[in-house]
Amino acid sequence: MRTRAAVAIEAGKPLEIMDVNLDGPKAGEVLVEMKATGICHTDEFTLSGADPEGLFPAILGHEGAGVVVDVGPGVTSLKKGDHVIPLYTPECRECEYCLNPKTNLCQAIRSTQGQGLMPDGTSRFSTLDGDPILHYMGCSTFAQHSVLPEIALAKVREDAPFDKICYIGCGVTTGIGAVINTAKVEIGSRAIVFGLGGIGLNVIQGLRLAGADQIVGVDLNPSKKAMAERFGMTDFVNPSEVEGDLVPYLVDLTKGGADYTFDATGNVQVMRAALESAHKGWGESVIIGVAPAGAEIATRPFQLVTGRVWRGTAFGGARGRTDVPKIVDWYMDGKIEIDPMITHTMSLDEINTGFDLMHEGKSIRSVVVY
Amino acid sequence: MRTRAAVAIEAGKPLEIMDVNLDGPKAGEVLVEMKATGICHTDEFTLSGADPEGLFPAILGHEGAGVVVDVGPGVTSLKKGDHVIPLYTPECRECEYCLNPKTNLCQAIRSTQGQGLMPDGTSRFSTLDGDPILHYMGCSTFAQHSVLPEIALAKVREDAPFDKICYIGCGVTTGIGAVINTAKVEIGSRAIVFGLGGIGLNVIQGLRLAGADQIVGVDLNPSKKAMAERFGMTDFVNPSEVEGDLVPYLVDLTKGGADYTFDATGNVQVMRAALESAHKGWGESVIIGVAPAGAEIATRPFQLVTGRVWRGTAFGGARGRTDVPKIVDWYMDGKIEIDPMITHTMSLDEINTGFDLMHEGKSIRSVVVY
Repeated sequence: MRTRAAVAIEAGKPLEIMDVNLDGPKAGEVLVEMKATGICHTDEFTLSGADPEGLFPAILGHEGAGVVVDVGPGVTSLKKGDHVIPLYTPECRECEYCLNPKTNLCQAIRSTQGQGLMPDGTSRFSTLDGDPILHYMGCSTFAQHSVLPEIALAKVREDAPFDKICYIGCGVTTGIGAVINTAKVEIGSRAIVFGLGGIGLNVIQGLRLAGADQIVGVDLNPSKKAMAERFGMTDFVNPSEVEGDLVPYLVDLTKGGADYTFDATGNVQVMRAALESAHKGWGESVIIGVAPAGAEIATRPFQLVTGRVWRGTAFGGARGRTDVPKIVDWYMDGKIEIDPMITHTMSLDEINTGFDLMHEGKSIRSVVVY
Repeated sequence: MRTRAAVAIEAGKPLEIMDVNLDGPKAGEVLVEMKATGICHTDEFTLSGADPEGLFPAILGHEGAGVVVDVGPGVTSLKKGDHVIPLYTPECRECEYCLNPKTNLCQAIRSTQGQGLMPDGTSRFSTLDGDPILHYMGCSTFAQHSVLPEIALAKVREDAPFDKICYIGCGVTTGIGAVINTAKVEIGSRAIVFGLGGIGLNVIQGLRLAGADQIVGVDLNPSKKAMAERFGMTDFVNPSEVEGDLVPYLVDLTKGGADYTFDATGNVQVMRAALESAHKGWGESVIIGVAPAGAEIATRPFQLVTGRVWRGTAFGGARGRTDVPKIVDWYMDGKIEIDPMITHTMSLDEINTGFDLMHEGKSIRSVVVY
């Protein structure tokens, strides 16, 4: 079949909107009609050329929502008409990782996914001339139709709006999951969130959901304050307005350091500040942000020997097929908010505008509605 | 009273054996007649001058065992004749730290202890000329008699031999506790221990006690192999005999990385290797060793984002008054071994020989018997 897609022809160039060929689903695969997709910093990271593992030409996008239109042989958990959210971290429920309760990093299709291919080692996308186009993060939600493995689709309720729940495919789950699944924040905790962008705001509402007593937000941009307060931030700190070092200021503000800190910036210096502003004895710091290639975190080992714990999270520690439908329920039940974070919507033809808004810092999330 | 002590007059000089004055116990304090003391690398670290917080003149030593000979006003949990092990990490059971189940770092007397003083801000030790001599780590076990706060003494059974259980005051508890309290190693785990000295051997027997399936020991000195095997090591790796990088070799040996890794070297490069040889998704690395002043650990944040956890431990996460008596029981019941690790015993007059043996790598533990 033919479908419409925004294709990343090469690094550093705008996406090109064009018709492409899409082969139907093979065994264990599902054809999805995308209804909406968010534009995430990770798409930008790859498109910019900064991602050393980025491959081109490819159809980017990994934060979508849509409807099943066809299933390949052997697919048992999904049928035509089901509403789904694509999962860049799949959940096979059979591999060594899925069977270990400590991780969500299903490895069932990792090697082919990393190569931009379906599990059989081929691509379903091609140009009208027949040249292959690669998949991206196993999702390729910047196409009106995409083929995905069955294990990379979460089935969700049918009354949930696509243009909002697409954000659960990455940002919402990453932020809330970092709090709930990775840090396992307890009621009454004090926490600090570094970076109040799309991920940071979801960390903040995750902390509110978890019953944190103090939720400190740190950002150099004072315009982030109002929105973060709406999601539950109790204290705002602008490092540029702090006299002296930031870490002792934050330790003092949180009465000895935070029980949990979160980096949602991707800046390795901020990651260090996040660790060191965690409480002696028990403070845990979670790295969410993706750092530039080759960048390293550092600290004195004394920070760990005196009880701080340094961890990271991918997709918020969520097992997608199990957890994503629950987060959709939380949204529909009003336990979490998404609408105010979707600051811009646009058509696929206008997708490059979404990247421009991101570069200019004007959007929290732009969503393409097909 | 007068007592005999090995005094660290200044950094980098041998200890001087001399008579010193010792004031009796004040409120909440206990006078202990030391029966034995181990000589630990931390004593050496301070004596060498490398410890930026080292103070002189002081009576070093923190790995002792002895008998209560007098108690000050208000002491309720100990009486004359009780057998005790001094605790450089006390357990007041009342401070914010003691009341938080996530940490053992009691802060009740931390500031005065760090200054080499008793909780009232004075020292009990002085020269025969009346000049004050500082306490060390709240213990000063290199004196035949010492005064300690009640909260810094673990009461232990009276049939346990002082010249063996003194080692539980630091090395044994640090190594076994890192496994049991900090890492909480599960039955069937794979583990790697970097450094097969006095701490590393105790990590190994802790892993055996916890039921680990694979216990890899890593050391540049092949003479460590036999003793480590005696304590439960299943695989020995000498990095100098590994072709190529050590980390992928260890990841391969442990079928994808170890569930738990432990640094018992204090070398920050080894700490990095320990983290990176932990299993993707769930591997945890515990820093036990004390690094040189100013040294920093580093890694790519990707190591944490893909599920590895970096933590540290002090005194093996043990709450001394509660846990040390249990470990003495384990020794007396034959659950753990100590005797083969006490490679040398000597009198207080010969204590500098113990430091020489440590420098020469000839001892696992030297113990001074009073």
